[in-house]
Amino acid sequence: MQNGFSFQIEKKMSRQLGRAGVLHTPHGNIETPAFVAIGTKATVKALAPDQIKNTGAQVVLGNTYHLYLEPGEKIVKKAGGIGKFMGWNGPTMTDSGGFQVFSLGAAFGKRTSKVSQPPMLIGRKHRGLSGTTKERMKTEALVKIDDYGVNFRSYKDGSEHRFTPERSIEIQHALGADIIFAFDECTSPHADKAYQRRAMERTHRWAARCLAAHIFDRHPMSIKNMGTEKKQALFGIVQGGRYEDLRKENARAIWKMNFDGFGIGGSFEKEDMGNAVRWVNEILPEEKPRHLLGIGGVADLFSAVENGCDTFDCVSPTREARTGSLYTKKGRVNITNARFRTDFSPLEKDCPCYTCINFTRAYLAHLFRSQELLGYTLASIHNLSFFIGLVKNMRTAILDGKFKKYKDGFLDTYGKI
Amino acid sequence: MQNGFSFQIEKKMSRQLGRAGVLHTPHGNIETPAFVAIGTKATVKALAPDQIKNTGAQVVLGNTYHLYLEPGEKIVKKAGGIGKFMGWNGPTMTDSGGFQVFSLGAAFGKRTSKVSQPPMLIGRKHRGLSGTTKERMKTEALVKIDDYGVNFRSYKDGSEHRFTPERSIEIQHALGADIIFAFDECTSPHADKAYQRRAMERTHRWAARCLAAHIFDRHPMSIKNMGTEKKQALFGIVQGGRYEDLRKENARAIWKMNFDGFGIGGSFEKEDMGNAVRWVNEILPEEKPRHLLGIGGVADLFSAVENGCDTFDCVSPTREARTGSLYTKKGRVNITNARFRTDFSPLEKDCPCYTCINFTRAYLAHLFRSQELLGYTLASIHNLSFFIGLVKNMRTAILDGKFKKYKDGFLDTYGKI
Repeated sequence: MQNGFSFQIEKKMSRQLGRAGVLHTPHGNIETPAFVAIGTKATVKALAPDQIKNTGAQVVLGNTYHLYLEPGEKIVKKAGGIGKFMGWNGPTMTDSGGFQVFSLGAAFGKRTSKVSQPPMLIGRKHRGLSGTTKERMKTEALVKIDDYGVNFRSYKDGSEHRFTPERSIEIQHALGADIIFAFDECTSPHADKAYQRRAMERTHRWAARCLAAHIFDRHPMSIKNMGTEKKQALFGIVQGGRYEDLRKENARAIWKMNFDGFGIGGSFEKEDMGNAVRWVNEILPEEKPRHLLGIGGVADLFSAVENGCDTFDCVSPTREARTGSLYTKKGRVNITNARFRTDFSPLEKDCPCYTCINFTRAYLAHLFRSQELLGYTLASIHNLSFFIGLVKNMRTAILDGKFKKYKDGFLDTYGKI
Repeated sequence: MQNGFSFQIEKKMSRQLGRAGVLHTPHGNIETPAFVAIGTKATVKALAPDQIKNTGAQVVLGNTYHLYLEPGEKIVKKAGGIGKFMGWNGPTMTDSGGFQVFSLGAAFGKRTSKVSQPPMLIGRKHRGLSGTTKERMKTEALVKIDDYGVNFRSYKDGSEHRFTPERSIEIQHALGADIIFAFDECTSPHADKAYQRRAMERTHRWAARCLAAHIFDRHPMSIKNMGTEKKQALFGIVQGGRYEDLRKENARAIWKMNFDGFGIGGSFEKEDMGNAVRWVNEILPEEKPRHLLGIGGVADLFSAVENGCDTFDCVSPTREARTGSLYTKKGRVNITNARFRTDFSPLEKDCPCYTCINFTRAYLAHLFRSQELLGYTLASIHNLSFFIGLVKNMRTAILDGKFKKYKDGFLDTYGKI
């Protein structure tokens, strides 16, 4: 890596791919493995920056798709980049916008049309739209993919937009995060192999174009921006669905390009996530950092860490928090259940988060029952602290050579609520 | 005052009733004049306790009506009182519930029926209800007053409840705030004088009953609670609408009872607020603290301070904050206006609040346009800081003998946006 970035591995697991390290960025270090806080629209929902810090978060990931639509990348750039805009002075990441283009586009209209391909549906949850907008959207194709880029409609107002690899990089340069990602086509786990292969090959061509756009704009020797811009690291995306040969072919192709690190994306069937990650990480160069995109299940995180991933992001801790679904070492509880109304113990007895130190389950239950905004804040603090602390403990366990013991102990009681 | 309370006047204005002092409570001191933060349902909306502290707030006022309905005073008592329940370790107050019983009851159905009186409507704003509940409520009388108490329906579900002076005190004892208020009948400024007199006389009888209930339960010599309960100060309410003779008669009657301090309530016509407060405070004993209920306009606060009020509460700073209406020294601005999208200056240049130190108008505009919860938090922090700082500056000006200069200077530019 270059331009102010470096990645040091401190300790490797003896029989598996997992490792503990430090990822240095212009805005500070990230001790890995690390769970990344999602700051979709340049805000970790319901949390002020000092509250984000308090969860133990080291890095915040913004969504390019959302920030492009609102407030627009030009405003974020004028503000000094996503970190400065949102008052977060630590490291930042942005994704490429690809996932939302395909999932939000495909999901609400339930139709994705492509110039020469069958519909691709991404099976993840998304936030709804008003009936009227939904109706209007249904009548039109929402996502059109061609070899040069993707046409899509805004989830907000149905307006038409187009992303290309070059445009995604241009927007991410304006957003100014420390770590940015190449623009890829997100395929569905239900896509057939022939389609997955074509999508993979397209993603490789797009990866090369992202790299070229990044180097043209950001390389230290670039005439366009010589010395004037803060440096950003570009991570390539390894896709390939659930097929071992495609995953491996994908990893080899992306490896050859000179990315600063890697994002491992794509939709996994639940049971093959660990395998898919291992296939890829056995090929990817050990000395570069690997980010696993959008995975946040407890068992999945253990599996991803031991199979060599360094950073993780997932929206579920904060999204679930806002519904009152809170994580404990024994599993999730719904704080709106009647029994919590008179439970004056903290949510989790030995949890060091602001919420557990200062408030009772009864108070959290009251806030959710009263639909008080503070409920969403306190619940988000707890859930985010839970995941950040969990991955931090995995790091400590790797350093102590006790990962398996920690994993087995944790999973032995987790879900036994 | 007794039971751990005392009030010391540090400095009096030379030609007016205003004064700077310190109100000592079991949970800490309140330097007066002071603006009180409203924590309706045991939460200052959208703010965590450390954020409340950060606004400069010294004391939080909870609403008995709301806390009685949700989560219920028994739960708050079991939690150790409102302060402990909500994680606020400073002084607390609760109102009597009277204002909400009359205003929420009267407002949504637009009907208040009384056993022997014409409808009383309180002209303040309130939050709406769902259409269905509204419809059901309209068909029934919502607030029934008799000499012993008030029957009313919950604004939440239409269920029937009854408050009496004794019940209000019992609930406030369970809620456990440092300062509690006597239960009064809130009359409308549109009520005729004959009705105002009858309401005033009823309020006097209720005041005596509140005092008796308080002494029975809470007096240090009471057999029922000897030494087991934290002490609470009870403030009597001076009502009387807009008639000078009634206001004065009211003040004299309430003065004679042995309250620890006074709440000045009732609806004022805008132009006679200063007069009404002066009529009352010229009569009330100087050595006891005076709280003005529900007043929060900038000019009104100056007027109330110079006419001898010590503490003030008003929901408008936080309520307006949540609509994007933000206070500056030149007046209110609406942060959703298009011009703020690209305004990278702080909301108020020399404002020391967390919001103004860390964020730009452009970021606040983005949060509101994106309906992000953090927007409500940051806006509430600013508006609350604005009012708390304003009243704190009035205090400093009194201590420096420069109140008039400060008032004239502030009002000279305020509203000139």
